[in-house]
Amino acid sequence: MENSSEKCNFEGNKELNASTITVGGIYDMLLDSINHEDTRSVVRLGRVDPTDNPLFRTTTVAVDAITRAVHSFNFNCYPPTVGLPEAKRAVADHLTSNLPHKIISPENVFLTIGGTQAIDIILPSLARPGANILLPKPGYPHYELRATRCLLEIRHFDLLPERGWEVDLDSLEALADENTVAIVFISPSSPCGNVFTYEHLKRVAEIASKLGIFVISDEVYAHVTFGSKPFVPMREFSSIVPVITIGSFSKRWFIPGWRIGWIALCDPQGIFQKTGIVTKIIDNLEITSDPTTIVQASIPGILEKTTDDFHSNNLNILREAANIFYDGCKEIPCLTCPHKPEGAMVVMVEINFSQLEGIVDDVQFCTKLAKEESVILFPGVAVGLKNWVRVSLAVDLSDLKDGLSRIREFSLRHAKMS
Amino acid sequence: MENSSEKCNFEGNKELNASTITVGGIYDMLLDSINHEDTRSVVRLGRVDPTDNPLFRTTTVAVDAITRAVHSFNFNCYPPTVGLPEAKRAVADHLTSNLPHKIISPENVFLTIGGTQAIDIILPSLARPGANILLPKPGYPHYELRATRCLLEIRHFDLLPERGWEVDLDSLEALADENTVAIVFISPSSPCGNVFTYEHLKRVAEIASKLGIFVISDEVYAHVTFGSKPFVPMREFSSIVPVITIGSFSKRWFIPGWRIGWIALCDPQGIFQKTGIVTKIIDNLEITSDPTTIVQASIPGILEKTTDDFHSNNLNILREAANIFYDGCKEIPCLTCPHKPEGAMVVMVEINFSQLEGIVDDVQFCTKLAKEESVILFPGVAVGLKNWVRVSLAVDLSDLKDGLSRIREFSLRHAKMS
Repeated sequence: MENSSEKCNFEGNKELNASTITVGGIYDMLLDSINHEDTRSVVRLGRVDPTDNPLFRTTTVAVDAITRAVHSFNFNCYPPTVGLPEAKRAVADHLTSNLPHKIISPENVFLTIGGTQAIDIILPSLARPGANILLPKPGYPHYELRATRCLLEIRHFDLLPERGWEVDLDSLEALADENTVAIVFISPSSPCGNVFTYEHLKRVAEIASKLGIFVISDEVYAHVTFGSKPFVPMREFSSIVPVITIGSFSKRWFIPGWRIGWIALCDPQGIFQKTGIVTKIIDNLEITSDPTTIVQASIPGILEKTTDDFHSNNLNILREAANIFYDGCKEIPCLTCPHKPEGAMVVMVEINFSQLEGIVDDVQFCTKLAKEESVILFPGVAVGLKNWVRVSLAVDLSDLKDGLSRIREFSLRHAKMS
Repeated sequence: MENSSEKCNFEGNKELNASTITVGGIYDMLLDSINHEDTRSVVRLGRVDPTDNPLFRTTTVAVDAITRAVHSFNFNCYPPTVGLPEAKRAVADHLTSNLPHKIISPENVFLTIGGTQAIDIILPSLARPGANILLPKPGYPHYELRATRCLLEIRHFDLLPERGWEVDLDSLEALADENTVAIVFISPSSPCGNVFTYEHLKRVAEIASKLGIFVISDEVYAHVTFGSKPFVPMREFSSIVPVITIGSFSKRWFIPGWRIGWIALCDPQGIFQKTGIVTKIIDNLEITSDPTTIVQASIPGILEKTTDDFHSNNLNILREAANIFYDGCKEIPCLTCPHKPEGAMVVMVEINFSQLEGIVDDVQFCTKLAKEESVILFPGVAVGLKNWVRVSLAVDLSDLKDGLSRIREFSLRHAKMS
């Protein structure tokens, strides 16, 4: 029942907690800590921007698709509120291509300015006085920020490192009440880097159904899996519980700067329509900014023509990054990675303060590391898990190795003398 | 001191008033009124999207600039919160190119998702408990919507048709009090289509200075003038009063779908910095969506290379549209255009109900016109002026003539028998 009560002092005088911070804001603050006399390049393992890895170049399919849209002169007009029809249709087809039934119609797809604006649209559409929402801990701080802004009470459920970051299912039922509107689920998991099994997802859907709440399945890392478990979309369980899917081109196609994502309602029983949620989503889309028309127009080309090779090559690189990180982390006395990353582009690592002298929390750890080693990590408190750090794997592999080696140096230099 | 108290019933059961409506929402409602058995094409004089006129094609300079950005692969990253440095610099240079001093530095330029997001950012940055803001009547409804959402009390000042739509300066001082934070000024004027003189703008700046309030100068139609008066940017008076300029590429370059605009702070005394407004603007930018990086990257090329010919040709077309409209309107008994359009891409026209049988307000007029003649006009109540209509001039000239002829037919058919 906490409402982002964890706070800590940043060096300087800013206070951090999950409902007031932004990823960009923290990132900028850490960059400010860099010692500019350090001649080494800055190793950025903090923010998850896949374009930080020069190997992660988008496909020429995407470049061709947007070039065609621009040169046609047909997509310079204001975009329609809910998105270009041909783009909505392409996303609906993409989401249902492996399913027995076409459970998502184009009318139930809404284009957004990346996954982040999808959150901005969905949360106010569910909010009503006294309502609460279940958010994962650790999670993605924009949920806390937006929930707070639309007066949705935040209730956190735990992801358990000792169980490969699965949801603490036992606690879910106790957490919810008659005012709970939805549970947010990020799959594959950011920031934990795990992939949920079919059985586990089904259990989450069943519990949500029993509680009478919707599932918001944040799948901006859909299909980004490189371990043994395949990605299972939550919409496979939409006959059990209505599912709102959030998707994006940012991570899988390496084009976060194009700002394009979607909301897809997966709801065979039409409950979102009946309860007025669809109307509220459209009303909220009408008063907010729209994704660029030329980018919307590139969607059908991107979805239809991207080759499997493009994706599988990228997953090979991420797998290598996960191996390098997991092995390298074992050599750093003050860090413990409880679960080898197998999906998404991030991983959570615990700081062992018993191994460190004069460092008391994750923010101080990250700030000192930025100052002394020009390495940026993301403090766990910002994603709801104090005294952990979040590490991006979407970086140049030599940067990743260099970063690990500098963190090891830092760790040894600040080791507690026993 | 009204707060959008004008309401009227739309056919159907929706209520319209300036703080709850959206341009897109009304436009969609009117399109729904079209009789699909009418084989004539729909004449769209409602929404102001310049791409509705096939002659209004953006310049190849813009196409080349974005194509270069896409093919470089350098602008697929997340955009910086306040905008790409090179784009901010280009906008600052553009805004100060004709001024004796470089009063706008790149740090005081913030890129936004069109002019609309600029409103979304500025109004909450000025809001505080009990504050009010002066908005023009008629105006642009997104100001009312956003002000209401951030609990800024709305106080309307009149634009006077009998004085060429100049501000009713006498009433301004009585309207403001110690809780007034700013006056919004749209120049060249949307929806009135007039251009303000140097002297009038200076008087507005002087009164704002006397009242101790900021001027928000919405210049999305900057330089779009085709009468005898030149465009004068409000920033020329920033030594008198701090000015926040809103700008956009949408109307002047015919690329509203690219969703790119800016906020520029023109403030030689640094008052926005001292009063914390700059920090609030940055905070608000951090938690909202950003304009597409590839579009941001095209800005320097667009601003540096667009030729004067491109703009002057377009102004010639608008001048012709204004002539056609103004002359055609004289032939329609139930409409009066009090001031020949000389800027922007819209004009306000009064409905003479004394000439009409069985039509009681602007919404009914527009709905019947849509149904019977497949012509879309925008009801004045939606821009704060009940029983007027707003007409877009940014359309194909033959459509404009066709529309005028259909409105004349409609007017004669519904003429009051005396």
